[in-house]
Amino acid sequence: MATAASAPKRRQGRPPLVADARERILLEASKLFARSGYENSSIGDLAAAIGVTKPAIYHYFATKQDIYDAIILRTLEGLSEAVFPAVREQPAAIDKLRVFMTAHAAYLERNYWSFVAMLVGFSGMSPSYRDDAARLRDAYERLLRQILEQGAKEGVFRAGQVATSGRAVLSLLNWMARWFKPGHGSTAEQIALDYFELLSAGLCIKPDTSRGQPCR
Amino acid sequence: MATAASAPKRRQGRPPLVADARERILLEASKLFARSGYENSSIGDLAAAIGVTKPAIYHYFATKQDIYDAIILRTLEGLSEAVFPAVREQPAAIDKLRVFMTAHAAYLERNYWSFVAMLVGFSGMSPSYRDDAARLRDAYERLLRQILEQGAKEGVFRAGQVATSGRAVLSLLNWMARWFKPGHGSTAEQIALDYFELLSAGLCIKPDTSRGQPCR
Repeated sequence: MATAASAPKRRQGRPPLVADARERILLEASKLFARSGYENSSIGDLAAAIGVTKPAIYHYFATKQDIYDAIILRTLEGLSEAVFPAVREQPAAIDKLRVFMTAHAAYLERNYWSFVAMLVGFSGMSPSYRDDAARLRDAYERLLRQILEQGAKEGVFRAGQVATSGRAVLSLLNWMARWFKPGHGSTAEQIALDYFELLSAGLCIKPDTSRGQPCR
Repeated sequence: MATAASAPKRRQGRPPLVADARERILLEASKLFARSGYENSSIGDLAAAIGVTKPAIYHYFATKQDIYDAIILRTLEGLSEAVFPAVREQPAAIDKLRVFMTAHAAYLERNYWSFVAMLVGFSGMSPSYRDDAARLRDAYERLLRQILEQGAKEGVFRAGQVATSGRAVLSLLNWMARWFKPGHGSTAEQIALDYFELLSAGLCIKPDTSRGQPCR
């Protein structure tokens, strides 16, 4: 994340968009990729959606791939920046898990279009950014795994559930990008809280895993 | 599902593919749509993948949209035909839920490409088929809701969990289309069974929903 001092030099030419032009381009591109798919969206479509010319876009991004890469990287970075500190504040694994899920969902709602673009997009990232994205994703999944392992060590979570429950948590959150609509019904945070309670307490009134049957 | 007697008349021209040509086209189209997306796949690409000419495809399907519609409808029909009878055989809600999840996953594994094409595809169905697909999907979701309601009535499942747990079950199963690879690691059925046990018994060793905390 570049500071003012370390920011790369502006290219030649008059900036044809407003001050937050990069932001505007990334937001509109996210909407376009999320709705129509990466392959079906052109720089021309993007320029038309913003109401500028194609060169105005090229002033900030050399290629469509660059825009896609920027969306994915900043979405993963932003997600980590939102979720890691929130989790760290909680000492107990059960609270860490709750906060992981709700902070993730709240970030999804605040960054809805870029999240959907990331999760429904067909495009791969360019090789130079793929490793950065993979590192962020791996660290994120590691955080979740550590929470689940801590819960097992604390004797609060059942043992042997790390792989399945980690996968379940991410599946529930990721699939939200496919059906959740901001501003309609519950907030994403409330939905994540409902999932958290279901996942931790279970559906059975009297769970009984001792006999290979989940409910008595 | 047309019987031999009611089957529509063959169009003029020599069938240029083998006996199960329709099947072959639908399978290869599913692979193509799943990998490249509907919009990025042409009839030309499909013909090349099968190793036939474009007219050989058009002999069976008038448009790419027709192929897509056929994939979605038959996938939803096949899913229902696999899951409904399996669920009906089980009297108890907990067993119905287990069978719903495992039969769904087994069907996903057997019909991997058409399932992925259905769940990752951007394309909508043509209006004439959209209602049929919606009916199938609604009936499927109703089956799941009935199982969850039955479990609450039986006093086995916690009350007030139908909406969240129904959504959770479908999210876990649907997201599998994004990461599960047939033939690598556990079977889809085993993964669904793990999810079922987690969802029903919960992650907490000592669940305690009475005080608004999922774990004691």
